[in-house]
Amino acid sequence: MSTKFSIIGGDLRIIKLAQILAKDGNEIFTYGLDKAKELKNENIVFCDTLNEAIESSEIIIGPIPFSSNGIEINAPFSDEKIEIKDIIHNSNGRMIIAGAINKDVYEMQKNEDEECIKIVDIMNREELAVLNTISTAEGTIELMIANTNKILHGAEVLILGFGRVAKTLANKINALSAKVTCAARKEKDIAWIKTYGYKETNINELSNEKLQKYDFIINTVPKLILNEELLSGIKKECLVIDLASKPGGIDRKSAKEKEINYIWALALPGKIAPVTTAEFIKDTIYNILRKR
Amino acid sequence: MSTKFSIIGGDLRIIKLAQILAKDGNEIFTYGLDKAKELKNENIVFCDTLNEAIESSEIIIGPIPFSSNGIEINAPFSDEKIEIKDIIHNSNGRMIIAGAINKDVYEMQKNEDEECIKIVDIMNREELAVLNTISTAEGTIELMIANTNKILHGAEVLILGFGRVAKTLANKINALSAKVTCAARKEKDIAWIKTYGYKETNINELSNEKLQKYDFIINTVPKLILNEELLSGIKKECLVIDLASKPGGIDRKSAKEKEINYIWALALPGKIAPVTTAEFIKDTIYNILRKR
Amino acid sequence: MSTKFSIIGGDLRIIKLAQILAKDGNEIFTYGLDKAKELKNENIVFCDTLNEAIESSEIIIGPIPFSSNGIEINAPFSDEKIEIKDIIHNSNGRMIIAGAINKDVYEMQKNEDEECIKIVDIMNREELAVLNTISTAEGTIELMIANTNKILHGAEVLILGFGRVAKTLANKINALSAKVTCAARKEKDIAWIKTYGYKETNINELSNEKLQKYDFIINTVPKLILNEELLSGIKKECLVIDLASKPGGIDRKSAKEKEINYIWALALPGKIAPVTTAEFIKDTIYNILRKR
Amino acid sequence: MSTKFSIIGGDLRIIKLAQILAKDGNEIFTYGLDKAKELKNENIVFCDTLNEAIESSEIIIGPIPFSSNGIEINAPFSDEKIEIKDIIHNSNGRMIIAGAINKDVYEMQKNEDEECIKIVDIMNREELAVLNTISTAEGTIELMIANTNKILHGAEVLILGFGRVAKTLANKINALSAKVTCAARKEKDIAWIKTYGYKETNINELSNEKLQKYDFIINTVPKLILNEELLSGIKKECLVIDLASKPGGIDRKSAKEKEINYIWALALPGKIAPVTTAEFIKDTIYNILRKR
Repeated sequence: MSTKFSIIGGDLRIIKLAQILAKDGNEIFTYGLDKAKELKNENIVFCDTLNEAIESSEIIIGPIPFSSNGIEINAPFSDEKIEIKDIIHNSNGRMIIAGAINKDVYEMQKNEDEECIKIVDIMNREELAVLNTISTAEGTIELMIANTNKILHGAEVLILGFGRVAKTLANKINALSAKVTCAARKEKDIAWIKTYGYKETNINELSNEKLQKYDFIINTVPKLILNEELLSGIKKECLVIDLASKPGGIDRKSAKEKEINYIWALALPGKIAPVTTAEFIKDTIYNILRKR
Repeated sequence: MSTKFSIIGGDLRIIKLAQILAKDGNEIFTYGLDKAKELKNENIVFCDTLNEAIESSEIIIGPIPFSSNGIEINAPFSDEKIEIKDIIHNSNGRMIIAGAINKDVYEMQKNEDEECIKIVDIMNREELAVLNTISTAEGTIELMIANTNKILHGAEVLILGFGRVAKTLANKINALSAKVTCAARKEKDIAWIKTYGYKETNINELSNEKLQKYDFIINTVPKLILNEELLSGIKKECLVIDLASKPGGIDRKSAKEKEINYIWALALPGKIAPVTTAEFIKDTIYNILRKR
Repeated sequence: MSTKFSIIGGDLRIIKLAQILAKDGNEIFTYGLDKAKELKNENIVFCDTLNEAIESSEIIIGPIPFSSNGIEINAPFSDEKIEIKDIIHNSNGRMIIAGAINKDVYEMQKNEDEECIKIVDIMNREELAVLNTISTAEGTIELMIANTNKILHGAEVLILGFGRVAKTLANKINALSAKVTCAARKEKDIAWIKTYGYKETNINELSNEKLQKYDFIINTVPKLILNEELLSGIKKECLVIDLASKPGGIDRKSAKEKEINYIWALALPGKIAPVTTAEFIKDTIYNILRKR
Repeated sequence: MSTKFSIIGGDLRIIKLAQILAKDGNEIFTYGLDKAKELKNENIVFCDTLNEAIESSEIIIGPIPFSSNGIEINAPFSDEKIEIKDIIHNSNGRMIIAGAINKDVYEMQKNEDEECIKIVDIMNREELAVLNTISTAEGTIELMIANTNKILHGAEVLILGFGRVAKTLANKINALSAKVTCAARKEKDIAWIKTYGYKETNINELSNEKLQKYDFIINTVPKLILNEELLSGIKKECLVIDLASKPGGIDRKSAKEKEINYIWALALPGKIAPVTTAEFIKDTIYNILRKR
């Protein structure tokens, strides 16, 4: 089931993805990756123009994240400026798969008169988000071991939130014999926390007194949870890790003032396990194609 | 926070529930439980009429399941016939909490002109369903150990479906060093199966050849999965357990003809752990009251 | 590497063993198993005399346990009386492998003048004892689930001793989300208990007060631990399981008087998983032969 | 049960130990730790002479390791030279507890005519060695996550040896959903490997072909296992970690030539978790004192 992909721009993850897709027997046509030396030896065609790459392909793959200014796509491995609208104009019915695509791009799509412009944001795919929790959990464990002078085994760990990342993290930290408490709000989540054998607490009823016992506090909720009041309860040796995307869950100014041992760890999958992450992206692309 | 409950009818689980609620400091007024001897010594009032019980209380608790004929409630510990409509008529604004309530009862409720009849089916509460998966999983493990002459450790176990029961069961069986494969359909579920470290397979692509390797097959999907064709692939020593409610997931006629080692295990929580189940029902009732 | 075995007497486990050895391509000559119908269809020779069986073979396999009266071997699947001394006399240099062999037999061996009588008690093999802990642990879990009306998940479990059985049992019960405490004496064992993430207590400093919190107490030490004094601290709902061979670790008379929920569970591997047990015996026999 | 300790010389671990012992209510008299600023605020007496410290105390605590040249003890936090023989001469019946003590010191002890010189090497205490495996395992997991670009989850991991470190490491890596194989020689160890649910292989029958499948190989055996021949089978992406003390288990010259991704990780407990390590040393000292 070989497919012809054009891969336009992107960072190291996209380079790994290109290698994996090529290795799997697909034909790859790239543009905007001219400086990616590790691709030179592979069965990959470097195209001279954006059009050539796109027209040789059935599916267009763009960067993750797609663009940082809303005009050009991210292409750190090229000196070329590649405009989003040029990709969309030339796509000509081909599906465009990229990641973390800004709303404006979808707007741009609507303004086009052409039919069949189909843009898929791979970062919105539930299966990819789930699989990425594995690397996030492993990266968090690495940070927990590296940034304290005690063992994790037997430590009291509080995880704020019980979404995807929290579920996987709690599972793995519990497996390492730490004492895991998860803080959630919904009765359903509280029930799951008990069912997985962790301790539970109501995230709306945290107090600085309750926080004193924890050796580690890991936030996964993307809104302010650990405010100044709560931070004042955290003990000196506690390591606080925030895994939530902006704005994060911690009052950073207060944390600094109180000299709390604090790490804001973002985008762990790409840092901890770029090859695995590329493989999961590939699997997700195949899922998308299978459903076409 | 003592509450006055009237408890009308019900089986052993309701008796346990009455004991636990009374122990917690609530006042209990019963009707339709006159033969429940274990209640006699408790701080529980046996009322002479349905009305007396209801009027003494703030909340009405009915049987689980509520009724088997749509006219009278289930009251195995009494010779009285207690009609559903009498409870509804007399409820007079009080919330009625019971379990597995038939649609007709809700219809009856609508036909009434009175305001504020509020019937809550506790079996529809997500948190209770989640907590009950613990007993279901433990009961299934007991069946797996008791009904084979091999160890579970190292055995190949296939779980059909990846809903609530399957999640808890997979977690526990995997923890006992069995080799767990979960069969699901949605990409999201497949991703979770991998993330929890189990093997995954597509439930729509089972074949009698693929089934040959399994020592145990546990169904959790309430529709026919193991048809005659698939059953012919199951090896002689395999134990098949169906946890799904009616109609179950197995062609029972075929299973019998092929002399498959087969158990249809229903309502495990009440059988395996009636006290824990009553405690979880109590917690759920408290959740309902807290939200009033 | 086919071997010729004579299999003399024995119970269901030996029959399973004969089947497995035959299936593996070995030649089997039996005597004292004439009523074992399941062997009839196998590639197994039923011999008319003890001598014929022995002389056809390289290795002699006897019952487990070997003898109950010190004169004849155990042969429940035959009406013949087979004397131990006849086997020894006729062994003629062949290794005799059996289980739970009484000291008298070794004495008998010494009194013989013949050379090279080599009797191996397979139950003294460390690897078999270790592997059998798996079935013992699974059987104990089955008893724990079946004999209480609460869930094991979250229960307080005390395991007395930290030998082979306790290690495997603690591992599996902990994996099922029970709260495991192990009672030992040696500092090394206490260290391992912590390292595996269980709670530890000193077995010499138990008190009836300390025992009150436990929902399950499992003894693995073959000497009196739970005396009358300690038993008086056990709570009414607690399930006590004694896995220790005679004399067991519990004052049974006191336990009865105090109406303690108590099970003396002996020889679980043969009961819970006879096929697996036979396979482990086969593996152990192969280990013995490899070392010859 | 307050005790008077003299603490003579030592590195960061000994400083942590002094803090913990002082916090526990013991009286501490130090010599050879004059530059340890973190001790200044504690309830700890800095003595002017070795004799003063020793004579104020009941128990003498020395460095870990005790000495690097066999003449003076290790005292990196002091400019003084403290001779071993001066400690021994002045000990006057007091027990000396230190770590990694060279044989020569024991000889020196014998040559003395004084009675009751009792030197205990804390690193020979089994319980401390067991507890230290926790930090070693966590440190190894950190290295495994940090030094590859794939996830550990689902990876094939080979652990060479099945001693203390291997047991704890296998337990934790398996809990993180890696596929663990342990290589051992004794049948008893092979049985335990199966019983804990890992895959087993014979360490004497490794081949470069068998090694090709592994993503991680961790050695725990302090003798050459991975020779040039075996190293040639290791795949390019494999991470090799040697946890064995000198001479280690890997042909380092070959590993370098073959550009194998290789880490020799020694003394992880002190690096990964100095505070926990000090606590475990304290517990072990208490065990020693209890037995006096």
